[in-house]
Amino acid sequence: MTEHNDERFERGWATVAKINGPARDQQFQSLSEVAPDFARWIVESVYADVLSRPQLALRDRELATVAALTALGNAPAQLKAHVEGALNVGLGRREIVEVIAQMAVYAGVPAAINGLQIAKSVFAEREGPGTS
Amino acid sequence: MTEHNDERFERGWATVAKINGPARDQQFQSLSEVAPDFARWIVESVYADVLSRPQLALRDRELATVAALTALGNAPAQLKAHVEGALNVGLGRREIVEVIAQMAVYAGVPAAINGLQIAKSVFAEREGPGTS
Amino acid sequence: MTEHNDERFERGWATVAKINGPARDQQFQSLSEVAPDFARWIVESVYADVLSRPQLALRDRELATVAALTALGNAPAQLKAHVEGALNVGLGRREIVEVIAQMAVYAGVPAAINGLQIAKSVFAEREGPGTS
Amino acid sequence: MTEHNDERFERGWATVAKINGPARDQQFQSLSEVAPDFARWIVESVYADVLSRPQLALRDRELATVAALTALGNAPAQLKAHVEGALNVGLGRREIVEVIAQMAVYAGVPAAINGLQIAKSVFAEREGPGTS
Amino acid sequence: MTEHNDERFERGWATVAKINGPARDQQFQSLSEVAPDFARWIVESVYADVLSRPQLALRDRELATVAALTALGNAPAQLKAHVEGALNVGLGRREIVEVIAQMAVYAGVPAAINGLQIAKSVFAEREGPGTS
Amino acid sequence: MTEHNDERFERGWATVAKINGPARDQQFQSLSEVAPDFARWIVESVYADVLSRPQLALRDRELATVAALTALGNAPAQLKAHVEGALNVGLGRREIVEVIAQMAVYAGVPAAINGLQIAKSVFAEREGPGTS
Repeated sequence: MTEHNDERFERGWATVAKINGPARDQQFQSLSEVAPDFARWIVESVYADVLSRPQLALRDRELATVAALTALGNAPAQLKAHVEGALNVGLGRREIVEVIAQMAVYAGVPAAINGLQIAKSVFAEREGPGTS
Repeated sequence: MTEHNDERFERGWATVAKINGPARDQQFQSLSEVAPDFARWIVESVYADVLSRPQLALRDRELATVAALTALGNAPAQLKAHVEGALNVGLGRREIVEVIAQMAVYAGVPAAINGLQIAKSVFAEREGPGTS
Repeated sequence: MTEHNDERFERGWATVAKINGPARDQQFQSLSEVAPDFARWIVESVYADVLSRPQLALRDRELATVAALTALGNAPAQLKAHVEGALNVGLGRREIVEVIAQMAVYAGVPAAINGLQIAKSVFAEREGPGTS
Repeated sequence: MTEHNDERFERGWATVAKINGPARDQQFQSLSEVAPDFARWIVESVYADVLSRPQLALRDRELATVAALTALGNAPAQLKAHVEGALNVGLGRREIVEVIAQMAVYAGVPAAINGLQIAKSVFAEREGPGTS
Repeated sequence: MTEHNDERFERGWATVAKINGPARDQQFQSLSEVAPDFARWIVESVYADVLSRPQLALRDRELATVAALTALGNAPAQLKAHVEGALNVGLGRREIVEVIAQMAVYAGVPAAINGLQIAKSVFAEREGPGTS
Repeated sequence: MTEHNDERFERGWATVAKINGPARDQQFQSLSEVAPDFARWIVESVYADVLSRPQLALRDRELATVAALTALGNAPAQLKAHVEGALNVGLGRREIVEVIAQMAVYAGVPAAINGLQIAKSVFAEREGPGTS
């Protein structure tokens, strides 16, 4: 990714790193192989121009994203990435479980159950062997 | 509404009041006319059992609800009520505009534009005549 | 509509009449003005070939349609027509209210509330002046 | 599950059993591990307070649920559970196939095809070896 | 709008003009009043960076947009604007009717009917008094 | 499939062949095993009566279908089949990537990413061993 060095890309990439952590390189690489311009557009126009804006805390943005992706129910891989992102920017497991469960009210019980199963899988991966 | 006096209903009703303010009576009345048991179920099973739980701040719950309803795009009247609710529980206009605009990323630009027009109408109603 | 006289159209049109009653002519006419072939396709391929099949009672079909249109939430005019259709083919008001309210479980509370308001408007139109 | 003994939970749990049969314990356990309060809320507020109400037959409720989950298309695991539930409460295979196919009209052909493949897998599991 | 003069904005604004024609100023102004940064982001990141790319003809982009907005069914105002846009960039009325009707296959008949009624209203507005 | 020989079925089946190529037999067979009448209805009422109409080029129909299925996000298997169909009727890979990426604007970035991963898998299958 070092070939991109302009300011907008770098600003977006820093926000990707805060949310996605070490997983960012693989995800970006996979998308770049089929749609390189669109992958770059996401970093610049989404992560730099929208998600990096200071008008809303990154913690609040991830809370909203987990809520919306749970409600929409059409993007389980992205919901998984944003449950991880929510943990990365400071939300607690209890808050994440609570906001996903709340989506039962607005999008139905199946959407909430599916979201909780995704959250459960993220939590389990973080435990690792030897952790309770 | 004074005929319902058990604890669960009262607890839910108190949360309805925090979110919806004076508009709560009319909304509850309208729904009760066609489905009284369901109206009561909403107060007890949704507002008392889900939205009153202390595991997530009411401010965070309304942020998540505004995000989800903007993303789903199928309930403009409820989004309007929850933009009002978001203001009632302490979110600022700037934060509300920001989280709605962010939904363009997850649910598309039209969903965000429609959400922003609803927020704009709520903000305008609060101005009243004589306010800038 | 008398210019169409083949068997498939007539069979579909008879089912339209059972479900929609006297409203059928105006709805068909409005769609025919912009897409005449598609309007005819609906009568033949939807009402004759799908909805007229004897494998499921028309009462059950309308129950399922009211459920689905409430859950989807993207077609209020059609939901209104099918609440009327459900009454026309023998479902009771209580059953209709109950199945719409049940959709809160699968599609969220706002979808159910919106569906109930539509049912309420149909019920009110049927009262007419002089009825309680 | 015997530690819960109050009336609302037991009433809901009985309806879970009618619909889900022996699979109920595993599903409830899996959800309880990540969100125990929400799992209990589903039994009490959904299965007891909504799905156990006598205003609509359980057979009709499952018909409506299969229709809605097919149309929404966002919860294949739950659709599978409710196709099983529909069989458990007395709907025939032909009726289930018919209502899922009908959803092509209201939610599109792909939604119906996906629903039918799920129904097909449930029917096949019930055959067992040695059955035609 | 003359206060924005950088290249990306101008490029996007030119594409807005090709699609939306004279209606562009009012729509942009309305959105700018509640979310000025987001309005500018749409011109730059959507119209300049996505919709102005030469890899797909503008006529094909509008065809795809009319199809998608009809199928999604959550943004009637934007569908209306893009039916007008489709006419502005060279699609014929017959093609527009045909692609909207085709959406019945992928998103259900109600979505197609609703889209056709919107197209019909656009066609009627273009007639003007004195035109057949 | 040779037992069906009437004109409508043959006309639809020819269009299935143009879009789906050799994969058509297996898909039709799988659906026929659970819902034979519905499988035949798709060939006749969808492929013959809608998709074979000359008012819109098959290339444009597939472009619209790829757009709509990407935006809806509820039918990945069908999207895969129609990315293949789009290639079969003359759309280029670049155009397909472009129209899927454009759906980020109308249905959100996750829908576009998911669509692009499906397109990528179709492109990779076509390479085969020994192709760059």
